[in-house]
Amino acid sequence: MTDQPFRAGFLLFPKLTQLDMTGPYEVLARLPGAQVHLIWKTREPVPSDHGMAIVPTATFDACPALDLICVPGGPGVGPLMSDGAVLAFLRRAAEEARYVTSVCTGSLALGAAGLLRGRKAACHWMSRPLLSSFGAEPTDERVVWDGTLVTGGGVTAGIDFALQIAAEVAGADTARAIQLGIEYDPAPPFDAGSPERAGPALVEAITRRAATRQRERADQVAEAAAALRAAE
Amino acid sequence: MTDQPFRAGFLLFPKLTQLDMTGPYEVLARLPGAQVHLIWKTREPVPSDHGMAIVPTATFDACPALDLICVPGGPGVGPLMSDGAVLAFLRRAAEEARYVTSVCTGSLALGAAGLLRGRKAACHWMSRPLLSSFGAEPTDERVVWDGTLVTGGGVTAGIDFALQIAAEVAGADTARAIQLGIEYDPAPPFDAGSPERAGPALVEAITRRAATRQRERADQVAEAAAALRAAE
Repeated sequence: MTDQPFRAGFLLFPKLTQLDMTGPYEVLARLPGAQVHLIWKTREPVPSDHGMAIVPTATFDACPALDLICVPGGPGVGPLMSDGAVLAFLRRAAEEARYVTSVCTGSLALGAAGLLRGRKAACHWMSRPLLSSFGAEPTDERVVWDGTLVTGGGVTAGIDFALQIAAEVAGADTARAIQLGIEYDPAPPFDAGSPERAGPALVEAITRRAATRQRERADQVAEAAAALRAAE
Repeated sequence: MTDQPFRAGFLLFPKLTQLDMTGPYEVLARLPGAQVHLIWKTREPVPSDHGMAIVPTATFDACPALDLICVPGGPGVGPLMSDGAVLAFLRRAAEEARYVTSVCTGSLALGAAGLLRGRKAACHWMSRPLLSSFGAEPTDERVVWDGTLVTGGGVTAGIDFALQIAAEVAGADTARAIQLGIEYDPAPPFDAGSPERAGPALVEAITRRAATRQRERADQVAEAAAALRAAE
């Protein structure tokens, strides 16, 4: 690791799922000399899907070049996919960054920015098939590395890949020290953390409850994919 | 579960470790009909130990009665232990709540409020022995239940116990649906999440780096414990 600070940037947007962001934030902010930026259009507090308001630290225009850009997911990802300012920022950040990353449905925004063509990518299991519309290869692993494109599945996957990136950037001992610091020795009380483990009944119940949102998301993806093709 | 909303409150304070709070927040906010409050002295944004600023939703005076109070930990827990307004709020909230909970070093604040006398409690491994000063029985489990007092070890333990509480409050199926929703199927890339697993060399290195802070914390605990005894 050089003496340069490691600059990690997270896209902050209305109705994000905050744990998608706060999980890897906690890991990467602990890298020696890390600078972490929370980036949105304005510096006004941004509410998560359940109302937690977090204050951006930089706007698109004022954000320095980043070593890592991370796009979290959440219900708010829909509007991002057709937001020219967001997509332009993601393209610029991706060009400059060593690591381009996403958690959960954040990969749909990377896809809409044209950053996933021909690349393997992960997504929250319920939205994973939608990645194909952007020319990506949907992959049902918790964390998918394609070069230095690192995409995670749902929500908590971001903690896992952030530790891997910490090890690449600052060495395995530093990553292990961070893991010990946050006592990341998970002991879930249930075994329902993936569709395979949760079983078909629970998957079906959740999918049914989310049907309206997923239909709307599919429309948004189709529209964003058409716009992307038209621009090429 | 009744039709009453489940009201969960998190103490938000300067220099908290945000993942202590954001982990269980993500789980509990997904309970059907949940109301989540982020509570501090003012409604101004509160910076975490790494600078993430989160906006409180309620002040001590304006906070409704809670079903659950959760105290996260972090470097900022030191000043809490001698802060009369904080301790009075915690005592009141604990009297009204069904669940009194903490993550990481948050249990030290519960201890300073006199809420741990004769109770088993967890804490971040490095500060765990300090719990004795408050009459608690330090316990080296990741999550410790003593009646409806639920204390977690370091940082990520809060996700685990929040799922257990979700199951008590709304049934195991709801808890499992939340776990699947956040794809909490952890796959840490290293096996260093507890002092036992990380091994003595890493534990020693981290402990040495934290020595100054831990000495300061021990002094703060001694002072808070003396004040607690004097008040009794």
